[in-house]
Amino acid sequence: MKVTPWDVSGEIDYNKLVKDFGATLIDEKIKKRLKTPLLKRGNYFSHRDFDKWLEAYDKKKIISVITGRGPSEKMHLGHLIPFLAAKSLQEEFNCKVFIPISDDEKFFVKEDLNFNKVLEYSKENILDIIALGFKVNETFIFEDFIYTDIYKYAAQIAKRITYSTAKATFGLKTENNIGWSFYPAIQIAHILFPQFYLGKHISVVPVGIDQDPFIKLARDIATHKDFKLEKPAALHAKFIPSLFGNIKMSSSGEGVIFLTDSPSEVKRKINKYAFSGGQSTIKEHRKKGGNPDIDISFQYLKIFFEQDDKRLEKIYYNYKNGTLLSGELKIILIEKINAFLAEHQKNREEAKRSIDKFIIKNSIR
Amino acid sequence: MKVTPWDVSGEIDYNKLVKDFGATLIDEKIKKRLKTPLLKRGNYFSHRDFDKWLEAYDKKKIISVITGRGPSEKMHLGHLIPFLAAKSLQEEFNCKVFIPISDDEKFFVKEDLNFNKVLEYSKENILDIIALGFKVNETFIFEDFIYTDIYKYAAQIAKRITYSTAKATFGLKTENNIGWSFYPAIQIAHILFPQFYLGKHISVVPVGIDQDPFIKLARDIATHKDFKLEKPAALHAKFIPSLFGNIKMSSSGEGVIFLTDSPSEVKRKINKYAFSGGQSTIKEHRKKGGNPDIDISFQYLKIFFEQDDKRLEKIYYNYKNGTLLSGELKIILIEKINAFLAEHQKNREEAKRSIDKFIIKNSIR
Repeated sequence: MKVTPWDVSGEIDYNKLVKDFGATLIDEKIKKRLKTPLLKRGNYFSHRDFDKWLEAYDKKKIISVITGRGPSEKMHLGHLIPFLAAKSLQEEFNCKVFIPISDDEKFFVKEDLNFNKVLEYSKENILDIIALGFKVNETFIFEDFIYTDIYKYAAQIAKRITYSTAKATFGLKTENNIGWSFYPAIQIAHILFPQFYLGKHISVVPVGIDQDPFIKLARDIATHKDFKLEKPAALHAKFIPSLFGNIKMSSSGEGVIFLTDSPSEVKRKINKYAFSGGQSTIKEHRKKGGNPDIDISFQYLKIFFEQDDKRLEKIYYNYKNGTLLSGELKIILIEKINAFLAEHQKNREEAKRSIDKFIIKNSIR
Repeated sequence: MKVTPWDVSGEIDYNKLVKDFGATLIDEKIKKRLKTPLLKRGNYFSHRDFDKWLEAYDKKKIISVITGRGPSEKMHLGHLIPFLAAKSLQEEFNCKVFIPISDDEKFFVKEDLNFNKVLEYSKENILDIIALGFKVNETFIFEDFIYTDIYKYAAQIAKRITYSTAKATFGLKTENNIGWSFYPAIQIAHILFPQFYLGKHISVVPVGIDQDPFIKLARDIATHKDFKLEKPAALHAKFIPSLFGNIKMSSSGEGVIFLTDSPSEVKRKINKYAFSGGQSTIKEHRKKGGNPDIDISFQYLKIFFEQDDKRLEKIYYNYKNGTLLSGELKIILIEKINAFLAEHQKNREEAKRSIDKFIIKNSIR
């Protein structure tokens, strides 16, 4: 098992990861506070100080959520996870959400990605994010190459990270460019940004567990005497499997549903690729039942699309006892995805008109 | 002899430096084109492509000057050299001047310098620079922590510099902070900034010879396919000796005249410290004469204060033949410095009103 911010491979043992990283499993006490399926059904499994975040909420203190994105040409369902989590938290706890877009990271890391192209990606991705339904005036989006003021925050953090530390924490190589070696400072500035912007308070970062080294470093730096900020909290997500059932979705290849996929593409991909936990013949399936726990269609319904716990449970048992066939399960998923995407594309058009209300602007002296 | 951007020591052999760096001595043909004392009296001794810059001027092409400053608490006379050169070039060749203030570099390199303090330094130093008499609308000043848009230019350059290259070129250490390792990209962005701002053209950098590694790297990067810019030209200055006669002025200690020094401080420092090329008694001086070539008072008159060639020549020979005593030479210098500083302080007050006309502002989307 290998899990770094830039490389995930092998068989993932989440319990071991939590131990290795020194994080805490989400317990029943916390789970009871979470209402939305995405947050309570186990995809978010581990945390740092999320109990303190809830405590601050209970005491009516200021709290916020911060989660970012390295822009890419097209977004797929897996990319939505942290934003859906942020939106859920915004709705449940009525808090501000900060969304930094790290066009610089993508630009530094991808050799052939040119500057204007990455700006385009950011613009397109921001529309997809706004389309999820974030609240105007409560949601602050910025991209590093436009909101360049991030540099002055990052610089203050950079001063407190040696190259050796950055190299050890993030596996930098000396043949990597110096933008890449500076990037950890930008990333930490993103994580601490809600506090730079609103003053000292506890902010939570919903994030893939592979990004935890950034969280740890951000927590160390937060309390440095230069800053005297709160340690940010974190909610760690498991990886979302690809259609093939691989550990983690990847934008290359056919194993993902893009937000721009047409209804017929969705249908084709799910039917052709979605890894099935069913039996190889109908007769056998009726007799032995399927395995929803490894079935991708069921997993996607659980993670993304079936909001009703009762209905999800019914699907689970019907699939397990063989009443529900693999093909029928896929039809349920295809319909759900296509309804979601149709709504998303509509919201995305509307987002083009409201985008300015979400974007933080550079200060000018 | 050791000459790097951060360390100058030993006996400086300028001819050897020019050879080692692969630059070119300023020849008579170039000297004939230069009118101001500072440029033609030998302090600027070497160059890269300055002949091409003059050629572009002759062909009425766009040309510019760029020279920057790492801000410090107080500026001294030595700090003025590149700006006086830039101003001379602006007057003689009617060109635009760009002045980046690298508050970030100072912040990264000086462990105890805090963020707000370096912003103050920048503001104060900018007033001193404007006070020298740069033309409004033809002079563009910016500091990295305010004009943060510099980050998006630096990022594009950073992508083309590996950590190994930066380490080798600038002597970075792994225990230096990652701001410091990123800084070469900012520095190169400064040097190429006139072209980012005005489009492709030849720009000249008046700069201490110790900063040449930045120029070389900037020239390499300018022609990269990402940028396709002109290689910047350079004019290399010798170091300005301290009052004690050391190689290079240093802000610590008494060996420099600060722009804020009072007339009595100037008098005291020159009388007490200015290294004399005179003889130890008046009688001996009258008989053997002094040595103006090692006399700091004469050097300062030559570099900064005596604009009239004839008068300078007269001082030179009178000192050499013993007619002019060391104390009398010092009186001439003290009067010149105090007249300059009085005028400077007046201009500096006026600069407070015009500063906004010189500052480049961040773009806002």
